[in-house]
Amino acid sequence: MSDVQSQLLRGSFKLTRVGVTDVKKPVCVKRPDREITLTATFNLFVDLPAELKGSHLSRNLEVLSQVLDECVRGQAVSLETLGARICAELLKRHEYATCSEVQISADYFIEREVNGGTSSLERYLIKASAIDYREGQSRKSIGVEVIGMTACPCAMEEVRDRFVSRHPEQNELLTAIPIITHNQRNISSLEVEIPGDHDVEAEDLIDILEGALSSPTREILKREHEADIVERAHTNPKFVEDVVRDVLGAVLEKYRDMPDDVKVMVKSESQESIHKHNAFAERVTTLGELRE
Amino acid sequence: MSDVQSQLLRGSFKLTRVGVTDVKKPVCVKRPDREITLTATFNLFVDLPAELKGSHLSRNLEVLSQVLDECVRGQAVSLETLGARICAELLKRHEYATCSEVQISADYFIEREVNGGTSSLERYLIKASAIDYREGQSRKSIGVEVIGMTACPCAMEEVRDRFVSRHPEQNELLTAIPIITHNQRNISSLEVEIPGDHDVEAEDLIDILEGALSSPTREILKREHEADIVERAHTNPKFVEDVVRDVLGAVLEKYRDMPDDVKVMVKSESQESIHKHNAFAERVTTLGELRE
Amino acid sequence: MSDVQSQLLRGSFKLTRVGVTDVKKPVCVKRPDREITLTATFNLFVDLPAELKGSHLSRNLEVLSQVLDECVRGQAVSLETLGARICAELLKRHEYATCSEVQISADYFIEREVNGGTSSLERYLIKASAIDYREGQSRKSIGVEVIGMTACPCAMEEVRDRFVSRHPEQNELLTAIPIITHNQRNISSLEVEIPGDHDVEAEDLIDILEGALSSPTREILKREHEADIVERAHTNPKFVEDVVRDVLGAVLEKYRDMPDDVKVMVKSESQESIHKHNAFAERVTTLGELRE
Amino acid sequence: MSDVQSQLLRGSFKLTRVGVTDVKKPVCVKRPDREITLTATFNLFVDLPAELKGSHLSRNLEVLSQVLDECVRGQAVSLETLGARICAELLKRHEYATCSEVQISADYFIEREVNGGTSSLERYLIKASAIDYREGQSRKSIGVEVIGMTACPCAMEEVRDRFVSRHPEQNELLTAIPIITHNQRNISSLEVEIPGDHDVEAEDLIDILEGALSSPTREILKREHEADIVERAHTNPKFVEDVVRDVLGAVLEKYRDMPDDVKVMVKSESQESIHKHNAFAERVTTLGELRE
Repeated sequence: MSDVQSQLLRGSFKLTRVGVTDVKKPVCVKRPDREITLTATFNLFVDLPAELKGSHLSRNLEVLSQVLDECVRGQAVSLETLGARICAELLKRHEYATCSEVQISADYFIEREVNGGTSSLERYLIKASAIDYREGQSRKSIGVEVIGMTACPCAMEEVRDRFVSRHPEQNELLTAIPIITHNQRNISSLEVEIPGDHDVEAEDLIDILEGALSSPTREILKREHEADIVERAHTNPKFVEDVVRDVLGAVLEKYRDMPDDVKVMVKSESQESIHKHNAFAERVTTLGELRE
Repeated sequence: MSDVQSQLLRGSFKLTRVGVTDVKKPVCVKRPDREITLTATFNLFVDLPAELKGSHLSRNLEVLSQVLDECVRGQAVSLETLGARICAELLKRHEYATCSEVQISADYFIEREVNGGTSSLERYLIKASAIDYREGQSRKSIGVEVIGMTACPCAMEEVRDRFVSRHPEQNELLTAIPIITHNQRNISSLEVEIPGDHDVEAEDLIDILEGALSSPTREILKREHEADIVERAHTNPKFVEDVVRDVLGAVLEKYRDMPDDVKVMVKSESQESIHKHNAFAERVTTLGELRE
Repeated sequence: MSDVQSQLLRGSFKLTRVGVTDVKKPVCVKRPDREITLTATFNLFVDLPAELKGSHLSRNLEVLSQVLDECVRGQAVSLETLGARICAELLKRHEYATCSEVQISADYFIEREVNGGTSSLERYLIKASAIDYREGQSRKSIGVEVIGMTACPCAMEEVRDRFVSRHPEQNELLTAIPIITHNQRNISSLEVEIPGDHDVEAEDLIDILEGALSSPTREILKREHEADIVERAHTNPKFVEDVVRDVLGAVLEKYRDMPDDVKVMVKSESQESIHKHNAFAERVTTLGELRE
Repeated sequence: MSDVQSQLLRGSFKLTRVGVTDVKKPVCVKRPDREITLTATFNLFVDLPAELKGSHLSRNLEVLSQVLDECVRGQAVSLETLGARICAELLKRHEYATCSEVQISADYFIEREVNGGTSSLERYLIKASAIDYREGQSRKSIGVEVIGMTACPCAMEEVRDRFVSRHPEQNELLTAIPIITHNQRNISSLEVEIPGDHDVEAEDLIDILEGALSSPTREILKREHEADIVERAHTNPKFVEDVVRDVLGAVLEKYRDMPDDVKVMVKSESQESIHKHNAFAERVTTLGELRE
């Protein structure tokens, strides 16, 4: 029987990543208190040596199916543990590969409430990734993406100056209360590498991100809670630069006992209400660099 | 030579639309004062009688190419005229079809300035469509999609009440000035059918939409113009419902001489800064219904 | 307290749909044999009379949350039943509305196998919608979107002619075996209205669509099953026109006892491997029209 | 007047990239033989030192507008030259930045014909990027994305074996002619860094990619040219791995005189017709590594 993939080549090139992308599957994640079913999207890769014509891609799907079945049958896992397990299995099945890589993303929901208001299931995006080297260390990371709100500090001060110059006698009040500015939907993300003997909880990363925005957003808001969020955002105006820096500060504080070489990536993008384009800030770094 | 499409069928079904989608081409549109090149996306369809196996789809691409070539060689056209011309040609080439339909969309740029500030090229989306019946009237329509800003009137009054109750002695000022609320990026669209002997300019539709938002947005804003837009939006707070209604009012006013059966479609969607979901309002109607 | 939405207007316009879009929630659907958790996206609307300034959008989210909670607590539901239930509740909570509308979509997975090969969870998209009139009938519909494969019958015959003219002595074999053509990923969808006293199962619609394609596709394919699918697709070459018509035929057959006014919508779009654009066919009709 | 961005911070973090994303503008590119207007999307960034609160984002839009105006007024530029010019200008205007970065992408059209058939405008995507260091070298790169066709060599041999075993007496013919397999739309991309004193033409990269696929695709195909493409693809079956390697080989050959440290990135993704997921291969490397 023909095995075209296993043909040997001469003078060809090795490939960095060969695999399958955009594979969707339901995933069962077990938490201490409950079992959650997510709809996850997977990319699965191995590398390919120069002398081999093709990678056996059907093995990637078999590995995925097998590891997901094991999850259903019982082990409590997080998405990043799942990724690491798939990586290990990919290396077993692709005997020619020197490394394997898995990327997973899924919508994730957490019950939240606002100041005693109605609670609601809020949506977040979780992104896990894992990479495994046959001769060397495996690495995994966990990331989250949060939709929240930023209010612009610059336009607020500009308008405040204007209001004060129109109503100079009311200077005191106009300096004390939050003043109108543009505010908008912001999408921020944080990704942290997980060292071998540590744990990083996705929900902690979500808390860090929501804490760094002008305000988190909530799906069910009665009128008074809507006003709470508006007021919170305006007493807490932030550039995307501020969001990224406050996330970096919180990460430093939270993961004090993790080693210097842990990679950290933070992004914040505001879908500016006064522009058709977005404002963006990013820091790609390590805990060590941040500690300097 | 085999012509599989022309095989005759028995007992089969006619089809409403058969054609090609997501065809991208550069389009040259000639204006009185300038020539504009747009990157447009086309969908082109004809219907298919029950007794014919297939539609000759390559003819759609040939027709498109031929009509676009004619545009380059000289005639001043708008996207909706282009659509009507393609429709007519599709009917000629698909001799079995009783109707043809074309949808076109393209980014479109207009030079705008803010209160004497730096002018900038602002981006809009134009959507034209045309339908042509072999035995009957052709119809065409033009639509635009505009990115702008809405500020919520409800949260503003809720916060105002709160501020007044905290500073009752400042009631007068707090009632006079615009108060903080949530504002956000809004995408609104307006589509108007064009009766045979009338003209509808896309730029007029853009003006109507921008006039109905809390404020239009601009790409280049120095600090003072940013404050102008923030203030304008907050002295003009609007629900998506208000936006749609104000567009309907402006359409009634602007197209007073167009007949009752002209179709009008207005949508407004706010990418809520305090929620992860959007607020949406829509009216699908005719000029006649609006005049009642 | 200010209730801006309830302000009365004069001389304004009624609105067709006012509500919220892109609301994502986990949904628990109970089947005879198992419980499935889907990640669904919802749009929820009511209409708005001319004299009322705004719709209370937070009620839409409250209704959604409440109905989803009831689902978790016990009742077996399908997505379209869920939609109908949300519609009824929206009418209760928006006392000024004359109709309510809900659209739901969610990835859905079914275990499938190929000719005794490894079974795998295949992904589909389910789209349910419901509309409810205060003075009149409610309506609901269920739709599915399926990713499959089409092989072009026209190019196959053209190439066959060419091969026969090159090898005239082998005419018999070349007429008997399937010949190379272009084949590609196809996305087809079917939506059927559900009359009051009937049931339509999403999985039946999926079976109809998969049966009408050149071949369904599967996620895990060992070499021989890959060949099975390739051979099946090429002994069953289809235009998008054929796919839509075969779906229409199967719908007629399957829903013989449903009334004439039931709406049916079928679409098929092939992401052509030999073009950068897609081929598309559609029929929007009723069972009555199809029976003529 | 308040300049919130210029506030000084203590103990904060520097940021890797701060700027604006998703800015769309028409761009005029001058070629020896013609002038082309593209609709381009820009991302523009600078870095931000730890002690400065914010970057002045409006300057990014001013710089973009100014450089685009200069292009219209006369200089012949490519997108990557445009990117380099914007980078230089960003460094001038953001006096606090140590580096600037620009990413540009735009649909691009080239007239192509098939074996003497009707020619048509084919669509490609160009991606240019540039980065400029105040204390150090600037770098720029040009990339293209091409939609083409791959036919699977593995399924072809599997089916061939099957056909031969069914018709053993026809072994000779069945070994000589191309046999059915799955083929599909493929999206491949190539990005090459441009050393200071060299030129890389986007159209050359497009030629390299189209030459490495099983077959390029064309928008207008009469029946015989459709058969030509089908036959070409099937006499040239390729995995995504083959596509990437053949591109790498062609790059080595074409850019023999460029230095070892030039970065090269090649990706190929097939939207598998027999699966719902994609097959993917990638190599990220340098000319030096490829030459080893």
